[in-house]
Amino acid sequence: MELWFSEFHSEDVKFSVRIDRQLYSGKSDFQKIEVFESPGLGRFFTLDGFIMITEKDEFIYHDMIVHVPMATNPSIEKVLVIGAGDGGTVRELIRYEGIKKIDMVEIDKLVVDVCREYFPNSTSGLDDPRVSLYFEDGLAFVRDKVSEYDLIIVDSTDPIGPGEGLFTREFYGNCHKALKDDGILVNQHESPFYPEYAKQMQRAHARITEFFPIASVYQVHIPTYASGHWLFGFASKRLDPVRDLDADKWNGLGLRTRYYNTDIHRGSFALPNYVKELLEGGKNV
Amino acid sequence: MELWFSEFHSEDVKFSVRIDRQLYSGKSDFQKIEVFESPGLGRFFTLDGFIMITEKDEFIYHDMIVHVPMATNPSIEKVLVIGAGDGGTVRELIRYEGIKKIDMVEIDKLVVDVCREYFPNSTSGLDDPRVSLYFEDGLAFVRDKVSEYDLIIVDSTDPIGPGEGLFTREFYGNCHKALKDDGILVNQHESPFYPEYAKQMQRAHARITEFFPIASVYQVHIPTYASGHWLFGFASKRLDPVRDLDADKWNGLGLRTRYYNTDIHRGSFALPNYVKELLEGGKNV
Repeated sequence: MELWFSEFHSEDVKFSVRIDRQLYSGKSDFQKIEVFESPGLGRFFTLDGFIMITEKDEFIYHDMIVHVPMATNPSIEKVLVIGAGDGGTVRELIRYEGIKKIDMVEIDKLVVDVCREYFPNSTSGLDDPRVSLYFEDGLAFVRDKVSEYDLIIVDSTDPIGPGEGLFTREFYGNCHKALKDDGILVNQHESPFYPEYAKQMQRAHARITEFFPIASVYQVHIPTYASGHWLFGFASKRLDPVRDLDADKWNGLGLRTRYYNTDIHRGSFALPNYVKELLEGGKNV
Repeated sequence: MELWFSEFHSEDVKFSVRIDRQLYSGKSDFQKIEVFESPGLGRFFTLDGFIMITEKDEFIYHDMIVHVPMATNPSIEKVLVIGAGDGGTVRELIRYEGIKKIDMVEIDKLVVDVCREYFPNSTSGLDDPRVSLYFEDGLAFVRDKVSEYDLIIVDSTDPIGPGEGLFTREFYGNCHKALKDDGILVNQHESPFYPEYAKQMQRAHARITEFFPIASVYQVHIPTYASGHWLFGFASKRLDPVRDLDADKWNGLGLRTRYYNTDIHRGSFALPNYVKELLEGGKNV
């Protein structure tokens, strides 16, 4: 018998992973959670049928969502992380001694519980004394915060299901308010290639640019996400991710990373023409 | 009834495309050729079961294999193209008025015949008067050439089957000999993520560095190739693809491209740490 997990990248394109066995299957108030063991990608988990992290390539996502803002402003002390139930984002953040406080707001406690059991590496940072865990709706959490954070990372699912509120105008406006003057907002920004993802990417960018004078997008090779071509958004009131990158300072920290380096930091902000055109045309979507 | 084409990206990972119909299936002396019509990726063709080009993303591959060397040395006049039976590489090359002569050497005439019938856009440049078509083995063709070309583009299949000779030491040595002093060799360089591809990538790089003092690798997002993370090799005797890029000159040509621009040219040479480590470790593979 052959077991395969399949995910549709578009209506007409399917990505399938051979499975040794299913380790967990459960349903929270928000979504279905499954954990699989696979020979090709190691252990991985899905939410409502979409791959979230695999042992083989989660380092890419977490390197690029964390080290890009941290290298742009090494003075970051207070961070808000929204989503990120697998723990990988916090694991990377706590490597910075300069960070004093991390608030992590995940709507679905079951995701954290399941990941603590099946992904001890990725959740290893959640018990760091600087981390406060809130099992709440991120959209509501950020609503009454004013000039409180140096960095907000939105490590959300796609804007269907529980992640939907994290792609709204209201949310981006509240993030702007919750950030200090040199604050940075980084968010997972979907993908340009398949039309359904591209539409979400365009909408997110159009909304973020309404609030932030600096709103760039950078690209990453994440093989297990749709098309392998994934984007993150970098928005801020003042800091530019390429101009203000302090490469010497970041390299001086001596952090070992498997994807991120300060050259790829700069390089990832150079986008293909078709992606730039999609982003520019986003106001009409 | 549902028709799906599936390609294995590794033993344990499969990429599937919904098919409207199969337009062609044939066998040459070298390989099996199939053409499909699909709702998600447009028309595409395969060789021995591997996707070569799709209408939806072939522009990415052809932009990056051609415009990177051309922008590094806009004085290129004489070009040798090996493989490239779908015609897309020549279609991009003939847009440069400065190019006087293109020798294209494809081992399999049937690939060109089938592509002429089913991919008129991609083969549109093959009848340009500057193009000479040779249906021969590229490995043999280049053997007796000395200081003849400004640019050699190796647009080959994977190193299994008819493309195998184009990944050998002998071939790279002969390319070095066939190039002028400021000549450039660009080759499709496989992919870093899945182990079988990564091994080929490591071997190719180790061999190319034996002959060329400058041997870089650059990366591209090609969603329909294994992992979506594809590499090209840039080797030369003298010209550096980043240092010698003349962005103003290339931009002055006014060529419209959907992926390539001079920022992504620079950015694509910044590689993730894990890819750099694989390339450095290639001598032992």
